[in-house]
Amino acid sequence: MARSFAQRMNGVHPSAIRDLMSLAADPEIISFGGGFPDPESFPSEAFAEILSEQMASHAKVALQYSASEGLPSLRSHIADLMGIDGIQCAADDVLVLQGAQQGLDLVAKLMIDPGDLIVTENPTFIGALVAFAPYQPRYAVAELDEDGVNTDDLERVLISNPGAKFIYTVPDFQNPTGVTMSLERRRRLLELAQIHDILILEDTPYRTLRYDGSSLPSLKSLDTTGRVIHLGSFSKMLAPALRLGWVIAPAEILRKLALLKLAADTQCSTLNMSVASAFLDEYDLTAHTRRSVQIHKTQRDLALETIQHTFPDTIDFSKPDGGLFIWLTFPKGFDAGKHLAEHAIPEDRVAYVPGAPFYSVLPEPNHARLSYAGKNPDDLVHGLTRLGESFHRAELGLRAIAK
Amino acid sequence: MARSFAQRMNGVHPSAIRDLMSLAADPEIISFGGGFPDPESFPSEAFAEILSEQMASHAKVALQYSASEGLPSLRSHIADLMGIDGIQCAADDVLVLQGAQQGLDLVAKLMIDPGDLIVTENPTFIGALVAFAPYQPRYAVAELDEDGVNTDDLERVLISNPGAKFIYTVPDFQNPTGVTMSLERRRRLLELAQIHDILILEDTPYRTLRYDGSSLPSLKSLDTTGRVIHLGSFSKMLAPALRLGWVIAPAEILRKLALLKLAADTQCSTLNMSVASAFLDEYDLTAHTRRSVQIHKTQRDLALETIQHTFPDTIDFSKPDGGLFIWLTFPKGFDAGKHLAEHAIPEDRVAYVPGAPFYSVLPEPNHARLSYAGKNPDDLVHGLTRLGESFHRAELGLRAIAK
Repeated sequence: MARSFAQRMNGVHPSAIRDLMSLAADPEIISFGGGFPDPESFPSEAFAEILSEQMASHAKVALQYSASEGLPSLRSHIADLMGIDGIQCAADDVLVLQGAQQGLDLVAKLMIDPGDLIVTENPTFIGALVAFAPYQPRYAVAELDEDGVNTDDLERVLISNPGAKFIYTVPDFQNPTGVTMSLERRRRLLELAQIHDILILEDTPYRTLRYDGSSLPSLKSLDTTGRVIHLGSFSKMLAPALRLGWVIAPAEILRKLALLKLAADTQCSTLNMSVASAFLDEYDLTAHTRRSVQIHKTQRDLALETIQHTFPDTIDFSKPDGGLFIWLTFPKGFDAGKHLAEHAIPEDRVAYVPGAPFYSVLPEPNHARLSYAGKNPDDLVHGLTRLGESFHRAELGLRAIAK
Repeated sequence: MARSFAQRMNGVHPSAIRDLMSLAADPEIISFGGGFPDPESFPSEAFAEILSEQMASHAKVALQYSASEGLPSLRSHIADLMGIDGIQCAADDVLVLQGAQQGLDLVAKLMIDPGDLIVTENPTFIGALVAFAPYQPRYAVAELDEDGVNTDDLERVLISNPGAKFIYTVPDFQNPTGVTMSLERRRRLLELAQIHDILILEDTPYRTLRYDGSSLPSLKSLDTTGRVIHLGSFSKMLAPALRLGWVIAPAEILRKLALLKLAADTQCSTLNMSVASAFLDEYDLTAHTRRSVQIHKTQRDLALETIQHTFPDTIDFSKPDGGLFIWLTFPKGFDAGKHLAEHAIPEDRVAYVPGAPFYSVLPEPNHARLSYAGKNPDDLVHGLTRLGESFHRAELGLRAIAK
């Protein structure tokens, strides 16, 4: 059993996640490691009122079991939100999930037999790799640049891997790189998926957190052939603690995912679904989102400005239009994981996520992910300045090696 | 893909669950179908106070991500509860889950490769069969009587099925039969598991809902060889809507389950974990449980009395000492599913769960599960009386056939 489990977990580095979680616990360390939205953006006052009302007048219903597919009122609200975002669907087309993460698990459970091939962006979201791992897939990767997945590279991958099960993508403000797929690439991705008859798993947890520019249509909204499975989440839209996300999928797939949801955990929390539904009934989501965007945009701006001024020129960094992450690319030969363990944490008391675990095939050691979300201005400036100094010293070290 | 899914879901009848859920929605039908605790037993006032306090002073923490294994304070409380119940463990030995149902999914995910054999009681909890199904196990069954699983039969099963992965059991007030495993059987079950070197998955969602007699030691508390995986739940202890349960397991298994939990849905709701933890901090669980037991005991008493007076003598029924369920055994030849669809619902406007889906190998049509929980006295008496009349008419029909 132990061997079988190790085989299943081959290629993921969950310890990287665990270690980072424990880092965040040390108050002396300024950590850019997490992907936690700023708690100032949570609709705490609205939730306080809603919870008080729920307990006063609906406690017997709100604390009881409810429908496995999700509260009908919440499914209806999500269908409305999707409609506004260009995806025409009804409440029955929505399955409420324990965060979008559960969608990654259930889609993998439905689709993947051991040895099946999945196409991911390179790099890709580590949480997806962790979710897929127990089902023992193999991976092929398509390169990513500032316009999202490189569709020429994707075409090459699809041609050389017939029978791949699905393409996994985070088109908006990708985790870990922060890049957004261009409209042209979105259209081409769908075209390629149709030509090669492959499903697309579209993961959009950061979609509403756009700071600059206009929203681009989701892949699901552009899909005319029913091949996109769309995951959404309230974690960054309202609050992570609700553990609420959803999936929109072709009817036959949704029916199966609903059964797997029932099997996995019966249902989501009735209480939390009631809170989200009441918020969407009674409060202004647009105003709430505007406020959340402003909070995170300010942090992104200050982070980019500080990085620009304090990091060595040899480090490339992404300039995200939204979401929570900046991606660093160091000169080849630099090991971001080693630097974190040997210098950044013990000497400079500052942390980030090394990039290697975000690669499904060949880990690249010369990257790191930073999250600016939830950091106060002092920590942002001082932490990133300290990190810049740390990298400057490391760069000198690199030069010394080069001599 | 469709075929593969159908294969995986072979042998489970989720439509039975769905259909019953939809029945409960028709207010004209008195349904004994669900397994919903009485909402009068929910600690609504305590939760109202706790939620108000959480939102006033801890909203930023209570609405944020937290630890995947569960809030440390809640894990500690669960370890204390387990200690009082005879299971010595520390907070680190507890993994918080999205209800005990998630434990069924994750244990199956960890243990079962397609074709592996699982031993279940006959009949067994349908939710476990639904959870196990995607991993494509085979089953062997040990018969059940009023003292729980028949250990002689179990011995026969274990001898003829070497290499079976685990024994799944609900020792207290089993779903669907309501029976409780005797102390002698518990000891013998553990002995047999040791002899045949097999793990035991112990599921205890109803354990605290005991109306008569003394609590018997859990299998985990009697286990000296580290072979019991113990699932617990707050669904019947506090409220189902929290979606909170837990697993206690040998360290190496728990470590793997924790990784699978992270992969499946990141974590349980921080808000709900905070509520449960605060309840256990600030309120009297013993007094709360006493009240809940009294509510459900009254309903069980009235249900048994009404069945005794109104059902045909040819129908056997279990007399549970706790939990939510009564199990009916009809004369051979009676099809409880057919009677439900053709008579009980359309003519008598009363519903129950046919027993067939609770069998992992050979469905027996001549059984039904009734839940008395949450029914007011009028509905209990009138609904069961109508059901008794319905069965009397059917019995006449049977006699007519027999002639």
